[in-house]
Amino acid sequence: MKVTLLAGGVGGARFARGLVDVVEERNVTVVGNVGDDLEVLGLHVSPDLDSVLYGLAGLSDEQRGWGRADESWQALGTVAALGGETWFLLGDRDIGLHLVRTQALDAGEPLSAVTRRLASQLGIGATLVPATDDRLRTWIATEAGEFSFQEWFVGRGHRDEVDGVRFEGADAAVAAPGVPAALDAADLILIAPSNPYVSIAPILAVAEIRAALERRTVPCVAVSPLIAGRAVKGPADRMLARLAGGMSPRHVAGCYAGLIDALVVDESDAHDLAGLDDVRPILTRTLMRDEDARRSLVRAAVGGVFA
Amino acid sequence: MKVTLLAGGVGGARFARGLVDVVEERNVTVVGNVGDDLEVLGLHVSPDLDSVLYGLAGLSDEQRGWGRADESWQALGTVAALGGETWFLLGDRDIGLHLVRTQALDAGEPLSAVTRRLASQLGIGATLVPATDDRLRTWIATEAGEFSFQEWFVGRGHRDEVDGVRFEGADAAVAAPGVPAALDAADLILIAPSNPYVSIAPILAVAEIRAALERRTVPCVAVSPLIAGRAVKGPADRMLARLAGGMSPRHVAGCYAGLIDALVVDESDAHDLAGLDDVRPILTRTLMRDEDARRSLVRAAVGGVFA
Repeated sequence: MKVTLLAGGVGGARFARGLVDVVEERNVTVVGNVGDDLEVLGLHVSPDLDSVLYGLAGLSDEQRGWGRADESWQALGTVAALGGETWFLLGDRDIGLHLVRTQALDAGEPLSAVTRRLASQLGIGATLVPATDDRLRTWIATEAGEFSFQEWFVGRGHRDEVDGVRFEGADAAVAAPGVPAALDAADLILIAPSNPYVSIAPILAVAEIRAALERRTVPCVAVSPLIAGRAVKGPADRMLARLAGGMSPRHVAGCYAGLIDALVVDESDAHDLAGLDDVRPILTRTLMRDEDARRSLVRAAVGGVFA
Repeated sequence: MKVTLLAGGVGGARFARGLVDVVEERNVTVVGNVGDDLEVLGLHVSPDLDSVLYGLAGLSDEQRGWGRADESWQALGTVAALGGETWFLLGDRDIGLHLVRTQALDAGEPLSAVTRRLASQLGIGATLVPATDDRLRTWIATEAGEFSFQEWFVGRGHRDEVDGVRFEGADAAVAAPGVPAALDAADLILIAPSNPYVSIAPILAVAEIRAALERRTVPCVAVSPLIAGRAVKGPADRMLARLAGGMSPRHVAGCYAGLIDALVVDESDAHDLAGLDDVRPILTRTLMRDEDARRSLVRAAVGGVFA
């Protein structure tokens, strides 16, 4: 069975890791978000792609929830001593990857090719591909002004309430090579428990990807990022409340209108399934606290539609 | 007393460190070599400037002889794992500096301005300035072909005999702001015990700098990098033998013809002072094995001409 997953950062990475435990790794394609990519210290950083890379390679720091395990911070310490840019935390091991990628991009290699090469070097058997090789950046509109995603998320600690999200470059962005084909060839399409607005929407903002989902002939199952109406991490719940009018499963499903057939919902939200209309709820425990929980969630998502 | 020093890498850095112990730091200007600058992993690296920076800031690794003390290598470990460029060794702390500098250069800041800022952030009271803000690169002609300096020095372990040295960009290079003025205002000009061909010649290849030395009204004293006719480190002795015809003090002095008034010579070469002509020898011990030796060498160079 071939599975194609749309994934954001940390939640997407954990889900992807569970997915390759359940489905043959070489049959998995993960389409990653690039809307929160940034240039910092002259380096091209793709935080969401890297979360998935590190997750699939077993290199993630599970305690901290982002970045690499056994990380050190000497380079950033020097940067701080020299008065450089330190608002975005880059560890030494992480910087090694950014150096290799930035050099390749500057030499004209597309992001998808670099990503494929990095995944292969890290021994990853699944296919990881960015939604697009073109520049697509997420901008966040707030009362305090519009900010680039990372400036709002990291720089301002995502404290400003979000009035709107804009994807710079989306209109012209072409799907990265292999992405529409992976969606068309899939037996199942999954959407990870990522933030619908800033992790998944930037992927769906690429017209070819949205079109491939719309014309799908196989099930598409999204996993809600909410547990008891709250986000496990990050601002997804606040964004849903403000932009969709609530934090119920139907508000999550509304973000994927016409694109999904089922929604995996945490048991804690079982009382709140009204308004899902033709989206079938799949109830299970969704907190990915460990390996078993990740696999169990994936099995529910995969098995739910074929049951 | 104002002193301006022309300096290469490791030997230059050690001598500069001794110099600021003997002469008021704010009265010292070090003009650094940029001929061995390179781009590696997309970073602009200035190995000679950095040796002086780290030396003056007390951050050098004295055992290894280059780079920073307490260095770690996690980023380069990742680069290696990802199949990236690892021939030029960059430590984590060192990379922090290269990131800050590269970002500033890419933003259009001249190298001299970045260098001034880095020196200031590291608490250095002396002035460190590159010979030029323009691109000036050393190329090494050998039987095996012509190589960029670092490709020959590091990549090929400076094993190929040198048939000639060329300074790409030198004809058009303008001295960095303040360099001619620092030479004109100096009460004493010093040339560090660096390789005449690849550390000092690229500085002198900037016409304004050579002209300032030629029109000097104050003494200029060079320190020979040879001890008993051999280089302490590196290929200076082999280059002198092949390109100047010998490894005696007169062969070193010959590299600075018309530019120096005295040459500090190691006592081990005292038997070999013939042919120095109007260059006055100053005999002392020149090996900078520790702080005291550094200061003592500087005192000999400074005091020798004023005695």
